[in-house]
Amino acid sequence: MQLDTARQCIKHIADGSLTSVELVKHHAALIQKTDAAIGAWQHFDAKRVEQTASVLDEMRRRSDPLGSLHGIPVGLKDIFDTADYPTEYGSAIHQGRKPTADCRVVEKLKEAGALVMGKTVTTEFAFMHPSSTTNPHSALHSPGGSSSGSAASVAAGQVPLAIGSQTNGSVIRPASFCGVYGFKPSSGIVSRAGVLETSQTLDTVGFFGRDLADVALLADALAGYDNRDKASYLAPKPKMLEGYLSDVPVPPSYAWIDMPYTDRYSEDVVAGFEELLSEMGESVERIPAPQSFAALIPCHKIIHEYEIVRCLQDEIDNGWASISDTIKPTLENAKSYTDDQYHEALEIRQAAMQWFASFFNDYDAILTPSAVSEAPLVTAGGTGDPVCCTIWTLCGLPCINLPLLSGANDLPIGVQLVGAYRQDDRLMRTARHMLESLQPTREEQTT
Amino acid sequence: MQLDTARQCIKHIADGSLTSVELVKHHAALIQKTDAAIGAWQHFDAKRVEQTASVLDEMRRRSDPLGSLHGIPVGLKDIFDTADYPTEYGSAIHQGRKPTADCRVVEKLKEAGALVMGKTVTTEFAFMHPSSTTNPHSALHSPGGSSSGSAASVAAGQVPLAIGSQTNGSVIRPASFCGVYGFKPSSGIVSRAGVLETSQTLDTVGFFGRDLADVALLADALAGYDNRDKASYLAPKPKMLEGYLSDVPVPPSYAWIDMPYTDRYSEDVVAGFEELLSEMGESVERIPAPQSFAALIPCHKIIHEYEIVRCLQDEIDNGWASISDTIKPTLENAKSYTDDQYHEALEIRQAAMQWFASFFNDYDAILTPSAVSEAPLVTAGGTGDPVCCTIWTLCGLPCINLPLLSGANDLPIGVQLVGAYRQDDRLMRTARHMLESLQPTREEQTT
Repeated sequence: MQLDTARQCIKHIADGSLTSVELVKHHAALIQKTDAAIGAWQHFDAKRVEQTASVLDEMRRRSDPLGSLHGIPVGLKDIFDTADYPTEYGSAIHQGRKPTADCRVVEKLKEAGALVMGKTVTTEFAFMHPSSTTNPHSALHSPGGSSSGSAASVAAGQVPLAIGSQTNGSVIRPASFCGVYGFKPSSGIVSRAGVLETSQTLDTVGFFGRDLADVALLADALAGYDNRDKASYLAPKPKMLEGYLSDVPVPPSYAWIDMPYTDRYSEDVVAGFEELLSEMGESVERIPAPQSFAALIPCHKIIHEYEIVRCLQDEIDNGWASISDTIKPTLENAKSYTDDQYHEALEIRQAAMQWFASFFNDYDAILTPSAVSEAPLVTAGGTGDPVCCTIWTLCGLPCINLPLLSGANDLPIGVQLVGAYRQDDRLMRTARHMLESLQPTREEQTT
Repeated sequence: MQLDTARQCIKHIADGSLTSVELVKHHAALIQKTDAAIGAWQHFDAKRVEQTASVLDEMRRRSDPLGSLHGIPVGLKDIFDTADYPTEYGSAIHQGRKPTADCRVVEKLKEAGALVMGKTVTTEFAFMHPSSTTNPHSALHSPGGSSSGSAASVAAGQVPLAIGSQTNGSVIRPASFCGVYGFKPSSGIVSRAGVLETSQTLDTVGFFGRDLADVALLADALAGYDNRDKASYLAPKPKMLEGYLSDVPVPPSYAWIDMPYTDRYSEDVVAGFEELLSEMGESVERIPAPQSFAALIPCHKIIHEYEIVRCLQDEIDNGWASISDTIKPTLENAKSYTDDQYHEALEIRQAAMQWFASFFNDYDAILTPSAVSEAPLVTAGGTGDPVCCTIWTLCGLPCINLPLLSGANDLPIGVQLVGAYRQDDRLMRTARHMLESLQPTREEQTT
């Protein structure tokens, strides 16, 4: 039986040839076997998830309605509130914290028939201080952050799907380092109610999978308006899987932008993308970055730090000693931003969003690295440079990581596609087209 | 161009052969032409809905995502909170009341791309005192209550779809009197957050349409968990349209139960159902009502009145003079129920729900009248007897009105199908099968 993708498993569960209990046991065994080395899980209880799976199986036997993710285990970053598990934000301050209610994402998972496999390791407050999770491709290397555990668990096959969040590069970068598909939808599509807030403007829920259609299916299940989330908007949402399954009306056009931070790209990233661009030929147009782009990186920094220091006010006031030295200087520095600086940054962001709106009339997607290099060494003490994600996150644009390349250490290097705001379905369609058009060439190379 | 069903209009709007503005103008013209006589609308603003429709059309031109009801006008009973229109509960006490936020149903409508055509007339507090709306089939007759305006507006072709609510028989009965499809889903499927509460246990959102598939589509768009509604449940919801479109695995089996209130059926109801039962032959099994059924009618009454008097406490205390004389005696009497009586009634309800759970292992649906007669005369001063709906509403079972029969005054008589709790998809499948199997015979009769 093929269990490679969540979509295959869902079909098998629906027709009775596989039970959710069997599927969960398979993954639980993998977690028990591999997680001592990887450390992707903050909270995992094999008995509890088997019980939940048996309830879902019982629903199928009773001919109850099945959800679009019926019986599928999903990893959940430990900044998403769960009534069944502690939610500790990767912080000593919140050790043992027990939310009284599920976040909206968990409600939606349950309504889709999915089950929360457990809580995955996050960096402290989903910020810069590295977690103890290692990269499944190499224990010496970082899985990236902040959604370290979610990316690593999917890469290790411990779960078919996992949920993370991105405020700068916390989904796309770990997806790149761990060699899995990553998707950060447009801001406002998936509710953040019940999720640790670090930046009202920038925080975005995102997804990891070993198959892009699986990721699209998960995103569809979780998309929806929520009046508790100020970024949430009241209009029809893009249908990600429908987009993925659609044929392109004309071959997509890609933009390769010479970003202001290309000097940070490692040699293997440069070489990998040169090869990719040559494979993709005339579908990619190479254009210089508009001058305004350089201002967007500090603009993101101001908004992020101005907001995070306010979100963590209580922790700063009452738990300073338990905050890592990694983030203390940033939190201290953040207090110096004035309201004027912050509001100016928000205005610059608005102007950039408008610029992108017309940009995507001419291009289907921006093609760009997901990270500046392969995964860095754990001993380097960080989670990698998020700069390849900063501008798109700032502007709320949908981003996909495609695990297509590899680097000097044979570690994954991700290709990032960035699409038009709220046209996540179109981005999925473009991504599938790109994957399929590269496939024959790639297969030839390996045979 | 065929504009008979919402589903046809949605296709035309999606392919650009019809605009939402054109559709809304068509319906607005009908409202302006016919509503002086019918009185289905409490709040209607043609200019505003045209503006909303043009926004939805603009979304289509921009290739934005389209919702499942994109561009379709929907009538909304005036007990559902709307930020754009007053919501007055059919009560003088709440004249001019302006909610600050939309109810969950309106959020879901907007996310599906539908537009609220306006607010339809409700009886006072969705209770017994008749509204001034008349039956589109005969100005001398009642449209039923309490969702008077929603049922009448759909029957008059003023909107393709409308939303009401049922606490006893307020969706199925007016659908029967007005000759349209009505659907009250299982309790807990559609959120009541932001809707006038008259009974936590019994209040249910319901739907009206001139096509059953349209109604199923509307129900799907509005189904979903909401933690603000205590009846809402966290499990996959039945897919109503998918159910409607499914083929039955075996021919359905129907139960005709000799209800304890058959003596209230009018002669034309008795005659109509005798004819129907004979057409349906052996697929219907005629069974006596279990003795316990008789206790369920007073049980509903206790729960309804015990709860409504608490929900309306503020109105009773501060607006007694503005409450109609029709409902005053009930509200006064309701205070006499003890907590013990109430809790005993809830227990009886639980037992009945369990009884039905096994009952529907043997039958796909209960076949029963939607009301005891054709629509009563307006001069009779009521909205008709809801008894044909009481037991199913009490037990949260899904109910459909099929506008199949007509009575002595050539007014509609509805056929009600009642299904298993939370198996609304199966009930839709059964209903379509019944409609299609009756069709040939019915067509022969008319030719």
